[in-house]
Amino acid sequence: MDPREALGRIRIVLSRPSHPGNIGAAARAMKTMGFADLALVAPRHFPDPDATAMAAGAADVLVDAHVYETLDAALADCVHAVGFSARGRELSHEAQPLREAASAIRDAAARGGVALVFGNETSGLSNDELAKCQAFASIPANPDYGSLNLAAAVQIACYELATAAEAFAVPRAAARKAATVADLEGLFAHLESAAIASGFLDPARPGRFMDRMRRLFARAAVERQEIKLFRGLLAAFDKGAKKRR
Amino acid sequence: MDPREALGRIRIVLSRPSHPGNIGAAARAMKTMGFADLALVAPRHFPDPDATAMAAGAADVLVDAHVYETLDAALADCVHAVGFSARGRELSHEAQPLREAASAIRDAAARGGVALVFGNETSGLSNDELAKCQAFASIPANPDYGSLNLAAAVQIACYELATAAEAFAVPRAAARKAATVADLEGLFAHLESAAIASGFLDPARPGRFMDRMRRLFARAAVERQEIKLFRGLLAAFDKGAKKRR
Repeated sequence: MDPREALGRIRIVLSRPSHPGNIGAAARAMKTMGFADLALVAPRHFPDPDATAMAAGAADVLVDAHVYETLDAALADCVHAVGFSARGRELSHEAQPLREAASAIRDAAARGGVALVFGNETSGLSNDELAKCQAFASIPANPDYGSLNLAAAVQIACYELATAAEAFAVPRAAARKAATVADLEGLFAHLESAAIASGFLDPARPGRFMDRMRRLFARAAVERQEIKLFRGLLAAFDKGAKKRR
Repeated sequence: MDPREALGRIRIVLSRPSHPGNIGAAARAMKTMGFADLALVAPRHFPDPDATAMAAGAADVLVDAHVYETLDAALADCVHAVGFSARGRELSHEAQPLREAASAIRDAAARGGVALVFGNETSGLSNDELAKCQAFASIPANPDYGSLNLAAAVQIACYELATAAEAFAVPRAAARKAATVADLEGLFAHLESAAIASGFLDPARPGRFMDRMRRLFARAAVERQEIKLFRGLLAAFDKGAKKRR
């Protein structure tokens, strides 16, 4: 299945969200990662100007959001529901770390709609809500302070799923020509003669100067264009040294 | 190096943030993933009650934050600075997708302090700011709407680095005893006899009923305790069937 088509089968379900700003921020988080299907179960305030403001350029996700009275209704047409919980130990079955869960979610999306279910900001998912889910996922977090904002949790989940689906590429800079060994050897010869001409390097006692320069340029993965720049600079230094002589 | 010690060497630098709420939300995002070193370059408003409100339980990260007048000053004691940019194509050198960059960042942290640099909410990092960085990272995002909120970008970056460092585990539920093949075969024999006793299954024409049941239980990775429950239920059905006869 096309990765973006798989993302299209994933529904983000926010159950009993208290703060409309979080609904808007979650919509924005979804859209940045290519998700569009938002379900709201008994939101305290929705629609709401705070939601719209926080959605920024993702207002369309809010407009298309479905509001349900119960979690059952929001999940009815999904083949798989994954509850997000920070309370791994209390769950009746195992919570998977998000990255592990991501591949299972992708596989389930090949069979039909998949819901990712997030609970209330303060109380999380209730036991009744968790019981409606077939699997549980947890975002690994600081045990001393694991209190992720609701939209932040949605952002991480969507990022992880988009990454698992390899949905988006980072635009690559135009490839540049790497320097060849011949380019580099030309530079080193030029550098050595210029260093000697300048009086900086004593050819009778060269020490490890050229070895160190070789190491530095080797680490830098130098481009052909940069070699040209360097040799232009060396030529200018050389000319100055000759004038002074 | 201990993973958490490596995270301790990573500084989050927000350059010219406009909205104090984003500073607070970024502090919260950092703390949930185990980061504590926040540097602010010429923030428009800081300290600010909006920052404190959005930081929630991460107010200590704000209290400990350092404010600098210039990016140079914020980076001075770091051995490596990674600029975060959505503008991959315009960069003078390659932006790595975040996940690739994460391992390089972890390696750099073994040598000393590493800065992750995030630009202004509206304009991102300027060319002058990008020029102070040795590497660039980009969060793969929807090409049609890649506008991540500043704190959301910090959240994803910190999550990815904490995950790369395997800093935190998801608490595992207590392991339960898996059913053995003997347990399962006991269940299947019981199920078959109960199905026959109930009149549901005709032993002369069993069809594929038992094959389907075997497939279902195989997929479910059944636990020993669940087998006991099922057999208790079957025994009760059986008793009912015998009474009716």
